[in-house]
Amino acid sequence: MRAGIELKIGVWSMKQIILASKSPRRHELLKQIGIKHQLADSHFDESSVEMDSPEKTAAVLAVNKARKIARLNPDDLVIGADTLVIFQDKILGKPRDYEEAYHMLSNLSGQTHCVITGLALVSINPPKELTCCEKTKVTFRDLEKQEIESYLDSGEAWDKAGAYGIQGKAATFAKKVEGCYFNVVGLPLARFVMMLKEWDIRI
Amino acid sequence: MRAGIELKIGVWSMKQIILASKSPRRHELLKQIGIKHQLADSHFDESSVEMDSPEKTAAVLAVNKARKIARLNPDDLVIGADTLVIFQDKILGKPRDYEEAYHMLSNLSGQTHCVITGLALVSINPPKELTCCEKTKVTFRDLEKQEIESYLDSGEAWDKAGAYGIQGKAATFAKKVEGCYFNVVGLPLARFVMMLKEWDIRI
Repeated sequence: MRAGIELKIGVWSMKQIILASKSPRRHELLKQIGIKHQLADSHFDESSVEMDSPEKTAAVLAVNKARKIARLNPDDLVIGADTLVIFQDKILGKPRDYEEAYHMLSNLSGQTHCVITGLALVSINPPKELTCCEKTKVTFRDLEKQEIESYLDSGEAWDKAGAYGIQGKAATFAKKVEGCYFNVVGLPLARFVMMLKEWDIRI
Repeated sequence: MRAGIELKIGVWSMKQIILASKSPRRHELLKQIGIKHQLADSHFDESSVEMDSPEKTAAVLAVNKARKIARLNPDDLVIGADTLVIFQDKILGKPRDYEEAYHMLSNLSGQTHCVITGLALVSINPPKELTCCEKTKVTFRDLEKQEIESYLDSGEAWDKAGAYGIQGKAATFAKKVEGCYFNVVGLPLARFVMMLKEWDIRI
């Protein structure tokens, strides 16, 4: 079994991959597909960016996070990502408290929302950047009051945009996905591999 | 955090849940959503059933697996499931060898296929049965020869219908899912919870 990236051209040899994210979900996804990587939290102020569309906002956040880490690690390949949950043209952030989390989930119940992930690859040496944005629609089944309460009691809603994580107990909420599932978890894996290929990197 | 099922009506109290499947993926999915359960392999001869549609075949296989285990455990609630991969109107089984696995994946490359899971709940005391069928479309990105070979080298293709497991390294193959993602892993979780609700069981 091979792990890590296989370097097709010399320019990428000796490079480490750094994920500029503190998300344990993204870390797990990279591990799942066998990408050896380091983790670095960019501490980027997400509220400092607001573009005229959520797609642009996610992409700009992703590239800024990656650039910040790349500047500190100029010889490495840095991955930045930012995931936004959009419902009825509004961005749903991480819930601040129980009431807000309850409100988010009851709004999403029986409805379709969008998950948008901006993804960026940044390298200083050689100087290269690649950014994309992936969008996935998610439809929730109707949720009962007791189900939302029980989910919030489980503690899984916190630190997650839209107050849920599809890879945990909220898996039973998502009756339909349209697009890349892994994008909803936080990293569009097929798109990520296609971006690496643009730089002649094969995993 | 609550685990296990919460029994709303007396008839289900004292019951165990048994998953009539040897699939480690289904076992993991039930664990993920907090369903305490036992495992039992039905050893059901899958080749003994062929209906006039893959949907019916999957449903009949699921209910037969569950019935076989329910007869041995008449006081328990048994879950049966069977997942089929369909490409161009043909059922793709588990690959017999490297060549067949390679052939399957190169056929699925750049194309859309269907994953159908039959799901059954069976109880002898009280005598109840519920069966459904869930269908999800999966679109693969274009796969290079080297990617398929590398995937087969990883050993993940074996014992999996269609020669891939979306929850492993083949995650990067699936650029689009249309329907329930967990159905592709082997158990349509939203549908499962809705079936339990029909019997007044809340998780």
